[in-house]
Amino acid sequence: MESYRGFLALLVSALPVGFLAVLFTLIWVLHYREGLGWDGTALEFNWHPVLAVTGLIFIQGIAIIVYRLPWTWKCSKFLMKSIHAGLSAVATLLAVISLVAVFDFHNAGSIPNMYSLHSWVGLIAVILYVLQFLIGFFIFLLPWAPLSLREVIMPIHVYSGLFLFGTAIATALMGLTEKLIFALKDPAYHSFPPEGVFANTLGLLILLFGALIFWIVSRPQWKRPKESDSTLPKSNCGNTERMEGAVAISSGSNTDRSDSELNNEGATRKRNLGLDDAGQRSTM
Amino acid sequence: MESYRGFLALLVSALPVGFLAVLFTLIWVLHYREGLGWDGTALEFNWHPVLAVTGLIFIQGIAIIVYRLPWTWKCSKFLMKSIHAGLSAVATLLAVISLVAVFDFHNAGSIPNMYSLHSWVGLIAVILYVLQFLIGFFIFLLPWAPLSLREVIMPIHVYSGLFLFGTAIATALMGLTEKLIFALKDPAYHSFPPEGVFANTLGLLILLFGALIFWIVSRPQWKRPKESDSTLPKSNCGNTERMEGAVAISSGSNTDRSDSELNNEGATRKRNLGLDDAGQRSTM
Repeated sequence: MESYRGFLALLVSALPVGFLAVLFTLIWVLHYREGLGWDGTALEFNWHPVLAVTGLIFIQGIAIIVYRLPWTWKCSKFLMKSIHAGLSAVATLLAVISLVAVFDFHNAGSIPNMYSLHSWVGLIAVILYVLQFLIGFFIFLLPWAPLSLREVIMPIHVYSGLFLFGTAIATALMGLTEKLIFALKDPAYHSFPPEGVFANTLGLLILLFGALIFWIVSRPQWKRPKESDSTLPKSNCGNTERMEGAVAISSGSNTDRSDSELNNEGATRKRNLGLDDAGQRSTM
Repeated sequence: MESYRGFLALLVSALPVGFLAVLFTLIWVLHYREGLGWDGTALEFNWHPVLAVTGLIFIQGIAIIVYRLPWTWKCSKFLMKSIHAGLSAVATLLAVISLVAVFDFHNAGSIPNMYSLHSWVGLIAVILYVLQFLIGFFIFLLPWAPLSLREVIMPIHVYSGLFLFGTAIATALMGLTEKLIFALKDPAYHSFPPEGVFANTLGLLILLFGALIFWIVSRPQWKRPKESDSTLPKSNCGNTERMEGAVAISSGSNTDRSDSELNNEGATRKRNLGLDDAGQRSTM
């Protein structure tokens, strides 16, 4: 129960911070910048930060911790993987549209593309992100990949997801820096105009959201426990009390065997709190 | 042995990439910028990227993985903690001097301080980094902190170290972005001048170094195993073969009980490959 309350406290800190980051991005482009539109002008560019922060940071942050929500542990792994994949699909889609917006804006105004470090890192991140999504979809969501392949790919998938999330945060901070230097001329960025202070605060919110997500996802006691009950329907969710008990049991035991189990989802699920496989898994 | 070779392969990839990042920073300031000096001009500013990349990224990256070097597992934990603390002390010192350089340069040229997102995140990171070093020194290196306190602080120490390392990388990428936009006017950054391409490549090297360090540190099979042999001198290192064997044994078993053991370093060390404590530790 203590672990459950600790998780809830972290979650109700992380979600408002992430939501605030999206809200700050919207206020930034709507109040301090030109607003939103799709006409090749700065209004179209402004979709770039809004969609990138919403998709690659807020939604992807939630996708990363979705397996950690204790009340979902009674739901089937397949359902949770579908939610994880669904959130990642939305994040990927928003990221791609955010790139279209900035390329459109550049091309309409004859501004060169892909010269800045922000653009290099950002494009690499989005390409790897699409790849990460496709690999996740075909190897972990669809039922055809052999268990051995899943076991090899899972640590890479977990690592890449977290590294790309961190890279997305770094890219957002670079993008904010770039835009503020370009846009704030009179008054200049160095004279502490309200927009500069506001957008800097947005940068700190993004970083804080990342810090909270990384903390939640790296605590072993908040990992989804191994599937425990063959009597539960695959796609439905049981009662809450048992799951709170599961948090207490799994706290400190680190029993999730990663997604490779899904291959045997039709088979009888066994509760096994032994730690024979602990060293094979990443707990990040 | 396979795990040992895998580790070596990663290590001989990571170190040259990190070294190249430092070298690129030096070439950048010596060849493309004004060079180095300590006179309040741009020459003094140039110490800022050189010292920050060398300290907070290259040296700190090595400090993070120093416990993972299999040939050091025969050395006492106290020796390894001293090396970790020593590297962190050097990194902290370089980071502080790098801040002095940039504040000196700004003050000499009446350039405002602390207005950019880079400066906000960077200063917060250095303050937290100093705090992280002091807490590590007093709680883990000195022998007085009780075991219970060490066990509470250790997961936070590990997490903070990695998060601050990631934040240092993000700050470096923001700093590069800022400097390139300010400095590249004729030819402009957007016209793909050699300096822009070179410094962007430096940014990618920094990111790649971070990716390799995060991969090495997050593999459970490369964690330092639990202390195993009371006959080894505390500060000396034994033969290599036994350690290679230890890699093979510990691969997949994840037996390091974190630094809390040091409290009992004088007592008999027991080899214990049981996993009773696996869930209590962060494997990040």
